[in-house]
Amino acid sequence: QHYYSLLSLSRETIYGARNLLHSIKVGIALALVSLLYLVDPLFEQVGENAMWAIMTVVVVFEFFAGATLSKGLNRGMGTVLGGGLGCLAATLAQEIGGTGRAIAAGTSVFIFGAAATYYRSIPTIKKRYDYGTMIFILTFNLVAVSGLRGEEVLALARERLSTIVIGFGVAVMTSLLIFPIWASDELHNSTVAKFSTLALSIEGCMDQYLKTFNGKDDNEISSTSDSCKKVLNSKANDEMLANFAKWEPWHGKFGFYHPWDKYLCIGELLRELAASMISLRGCIQSPLQTLLSPQQRFSSKEPCEAVAMILACTLREFGESINRMRKSRSRALVISKVQIMRLEISEAMSSASITENAHNYELEISTFVVLLMEM
Amino acid sequence: QHYYSLLSLSRETIYGARNLLHSIKVGIALALVSLLYLVDPLFEQVGENAMWAIMTVVVVFEFFAGATLSKGLNRGMGTVLGGGLGCLAATLAQEIGGTGRAIAAGTSVFIFGAAATYYRSIPTIKKRYDYGTMIFILTFNLVAVSGLRGEEVLALARERLSTIVIGFGVAVMTSLLIFPIWASDELHNSTVAKFSTLALSIEGCMDQYLKTFNGKDDNEISSTSDSCKKVLNSKANDEMLANFAKWEPWHGKFGFYHPWDKYLCIGELLRELAASMISLRGCIQSPLQTLLSPQQRFSSKEPCEAVAMILACTLREFGESINRMRKSRSRALVISKVQIMRLEISEAMSSASITENAHNYELEISTFVVLLMEM
Repeated sequence: QHYYSLLSLSRETIYGARNLLHSIKVGIALALVSLLYLVDPLFEQVGENAMWAIMTVVVVFEFFAGATLSKGLNRGMGTVLGGGLGCLAATLAQEIGGTGRAIAAGTSVFIFGAAATYYRSIPTIKKRYDYGTMIFILTFNLVAVSGLRGEEVLALARERLSTIVIGFGVAVMTSLLIFPIWASDELHNSTVAKFSTLALSIEGCMDQYLKTFNGKDDNEISSTSDSCKKVLNSKANDEMLANFAKWEPWHGKFGFYHPWDKYLCIGELLRELAASMISLRGCIQSPLQTLLSPQQRFSSKEPCEAVAMILACTLREFGESINRMRKSRSRALVISKVQIMRLEISEAMSSASITENAHNYELEISTFVVLLMEM
Repeated sequence: QHYYSLLSLSRETIYGARNLLHSIKVGIALALVSLLYLVDPLFEQVGENAMWAIMTVVVVFEFFAGATLSKGLNRGMGTVLGGGLGCLAATLAQEIGGTGRAIAAGTSVFIFGAAATYYRSIPTIKKRYDYGTMIFILTFNLVAVSGLRGEEVLALARERLSTIVIGFGVAVMTSLLIFPIWASDELHNSTVAKFSTLALSIEGCMDQYLKTFNGKDDNEISSTSDSCKKVLNSKANDEMLANFAKWEPWHGKFGFYHPWDKYLCIGELLRELAASMISLRGCIQSPLQTLLSPQQRFSSKEPCEAVAMILACTLREFGESINRMRKSRSRALVISKVQIMRLEISEAMSSASITENAHNYELEISTFVVLLMEM
């Protein structure tokens, strides 16, 4: 247990250091892209359009490398598509001529804006291409409307696009080359940490249950309950990380087609386990427990402890095997272990009613096994 | 039950219609702001800066009225602050003169960029002012760097700010005046819907439990389990909605200082209840149930049904009272009801082990009562 608290302490400081690192990286990227303005020969090349490079860096640079890549590529696609369609709309409107021009441009802005916004609200699009469609709307609008003013839209669009590419390049280089912060590492580590959190929490629960003979110790309960709730509420965060991780290139121990969706499945199962943990804690804290005679409690003590031990060990082992990314054991071994556990729990069942709850875990763990086999 | 499925059906169509409505509103706002370009007298006033108005509308216009307001105000604050500090930095750098100027500007960009990014990563700031700090960085950078080029920065900043205000005005007007979509309504309705979802799910669970005598019906189980999981995973969404709701002005039945944080507390309790539901379902589905003799099961049938009925009714009542926003009954009445329930459950406990689980609910519901009293 000491080892684990040490681990979480060092993780805290790592988080603080990461934020600092990220800030410094943003500062570097901004200073680099400002050179476009500050160095005279560069400024003569790009002119006022350097503004777009700065804008791109500020908007695209995100905490995780995958997020930066995803936003940058989205921005690029959105600009190209929106610019192309905008040019088309502008030239069509030019051919109409007269006041009809303004009306045509206004209508095309309305139609494309509404259509793209509706497209954007579709959940699957929203998840991956939300930013891209926004940039599409923006670029289309700017190009279609300013094209009417008779300027050389194409040249303008080309220049802007090139500065956006420069901005993207600066952002991606600083994000990926200077101590990159990978969303995939984060997802991997947080999944592994969840296993040990739940194992700790099962043990804490058992300690608590056995302690109630002597006197209550509410602090510990609330701390394990908090960590369970953190696991329970991790869905949104996990999905975000998996989404970014998919954009990240091959690096470290992760290949190109690492099964990120598997992490989400495992997360789902861990959340169910956390839900059971929370309700088990409710049972232990309940005043009904005092209705049981001490004899009844003592009789249920041993099987409970055994079940909790096995569960905690299995969780730790699974966590470790995910951490090292290898099949923990041969399929048969794990399954036979689960079956033994099942038997033990049935025995416990007959002697004590409280272990009814513990049964849930075993069910979910057997589903785990199937999943882990696929890794 | 028929009533509830009808309700959810109509909600589906309402959601589709809302997306369509939102798209049309965005289209209208874009067409309106494009008039700055398209109508000659207006264009003579603002010139190329009309671009910033379009950009503001595209970026600021969000689905919920509160989100639009929050983003717009953030953008305004960020622009003013960043512009002001940027002007200061530019004039200071001017006074240095020579190549020192460029170095001074570069360093100030680095320092302010890194500091603001670090500030942005603080959770409480990130939650409400993330967008504002981003705009601050952007504006500061643009102004500080382009100020070196000796243009009349102040005039430029003033013009841009005024077009941003125009864009903000157009976005907020269309968002708030044409069929506004309120985040507060959404939060309120989703909280109420959670109550009825859980009530339905308790009833479904009981039906399922009693049906296992005859034959299994796995479809129903998985559907109620899905709805429970939806409640379980609602935390991130709820927090986002509450965050937007705080920005929304007085409207409909909600006052200015509506206790949105209370909704989050209630949501937290409902999630705990959903966690218990899921683990209860695990118990019912478990093969251990078959170990119980039919006699044992029949003996536990009646108290189980009674408890489930009372729970479902209480949940519905609470949901209804939140919906109508009045204290459902006098404090004493509700508490006495809960105490009766507690007694009944104790009786049930002595006769059957399965109801151990049902006990959790009762615990949580008593915490509910305290919370509801405060509404």
